[in-house]
Amino acid sequence: MSDDARAFVPGHVTGFFTVDRVDDPTKAGSRGGGIALSDGVAVTVEPAAETAVWLNGERIRMDAVERVLSALRADARVTAETPLPLGAGFGVSGAMALGTALAANAALDRGLSYNELVTIAHGAEVQAGTGLGDVVAQARGGVPLRLEPGGPQYNYVDAVPGHARVEYHALGALSTPDVVGGDTEALTTAGERALSTVVKEPTLATFMQASRQFSREASLLTDEVHEVVSAVIEAGGDAAMAMLGETVFALGTGLTDAGYDARSCAVYPAGATLDE
Amino acid sequence: MSDDARAFVPGHVTGFFTVDRVDDPTKAGSRGGGIALSDGVAVTVEPAAETAVWLNGERIRMDAVERVLSALRADARVTAETPLPLGAGFGVSGAMALGTALAANAALDRGLSYNELVTIAHGAEVQAGTGLGDVVAQARGGVPLRLEPGGPQYNYVDAVPGHARVEYHALGALSTPDVVGGDTEALTTAGERALSTVVKEPTLATFMQASRQFSREASLLTDEVHEVVSAVIEAGGDAAMAMLGETVFALGTGLTDAGYDARSCAVYPAGATLDE
Repeated sequence: MSDDARAFVPGHVTGFFTVDRVDDPTKAGSRGGGIALSDGVAVTVEPAAETAVWLNGERIRMDAVERVLSALRADARVTAETPLPLGAGFGVSGAMALGTALAANAALDRGLSYNELVTIAHGAEVQAGTGLGDVVAQARGGVPLRLEPGGPQYNYVDAVPGHARVEYHALGALSTPDVVGGDTEALTTAGERALSTVVKEPTLATFMQASRQFSREASLLTDEVHEVVSAVIEAGGDAAMAMLGETVFALGTGLTDAGYDARSCAVYPAGATLDE
Repeated sequence: MSDDARAFVPGHVTGFFTVDRVDDPTKAGSRGGGIALSDGVAVTVEPAAETAVWLNGERIRMDAVERVLSALRADARVTAETPLPLGAGFGVSGAMALGTALAANAALDRGLSYNELVTIAHGAEVQAGTGLGDVVAQARGGVPLRLEPGGPQYNYVDAVPGHARVEYHALGALSTPDVVGGDTEALTTAGERALSTVVKEPTLATFMQASRQFSREASLLTDEVHEVVSAVIEAGGDAAMAMLGETVFALGTGLTDAGYDARSCAVYPAGATLDE
């Protein structure tokens, strides 16, 4: 049995998405677009007699993480640290699942490949109902465009070739299971339209504009988020809502220029990685 | 017309590979495994009346770069800087092609996606005859395993989930066109065997062992490289030959421990990226 191992997984804000339900969790998921963030989750896995999951010093239960450990036949202490808020649309649960997969594989010498670990984490997140596309995006990094749903064996991922400073401002949480568990036909139609727009012109400006249109068409834009996004645009910036959270993200200094107290990071070019 | 734009592309040492010839350059290429390096190529593209390519202060001709610019209908001054030696198995020509594609797309607002730019660079490199798989690996980063040949629309890329310090020592150059242009049946058989070994156990140790076996089976191991690789292993390290160059790469401090004057870098987790 090896020592502990540590992985870093970027955060991920989703601009637009579809819900693609099929029975096989490695084929289910979503299409859509988002931005991987340099603010992410550092996950340490240490073999232990009994599984325990800690996030920022608090013991938590996280179904996706437990499913990953179970798939890897591992009992472990999982310790995660992140500056990102939970449940606010930053893909923290996906990052915890993927980071646990990468670090547990290393700590316990499970000998699986990168894509196999991504598949396990993606399936765990889908089955837990806490996310549909974050894990795949967090395995890619950059500004991923998920053109097909599912894990690495089934999906097709492209990206917007761009780099930028990113600011974010979290107003509150939204429940992913509440939204993706209901009727998602209109949401998926809006997501397909946004994806098609960005595929035709894969630039950051088009990505932000398509994200704003999606939040309106999918009826997910809250009044509070709308107010902040509008203020950023009036101040000459570019902002949109992070799915699914009451969160605004902006390019450059968009939020601070509009007078908001925002945290800043950047597009993170790499996917999740194991630390040396 | 925009200003200049800059991209960074990791170097790439190939441990083993196959030669997969088909007429369509976006489907042709190779399968195999390698390591993306934090020592890479910084490529700046500036629109200009006439195309000129500079590498480390010297004006050069590079067919793959000219083909990329032609595909993007661009005349530009391309300026590249790298600590890596040319023609020694570090994928410098692939990096130049991919960096030119990313930076020219940004500088000239061509509006192409990441995968479209990778496809153009891969096709240019294959048609120039200077490489078969570097571009695809350099677009992925990490320790890529190319399980299917061709560009992003056709290939399937997995990876060894690992991070390490990497050292390298270049003894001299080998000609890629001379090797991949000849009879490559035995080479491809050896490459398939190595790939299959690493797929079964995707760890860095297995990757290095399969790379050493490939260099022997494909009859590419030179006496000088054999001597250095053996010395590293005798000193308790792990080393192999970089394809195609008279170059040895080692994990950790393998080369310096064996008394060689080596340059050190690390596995680079990200694919090629545009700088802000």
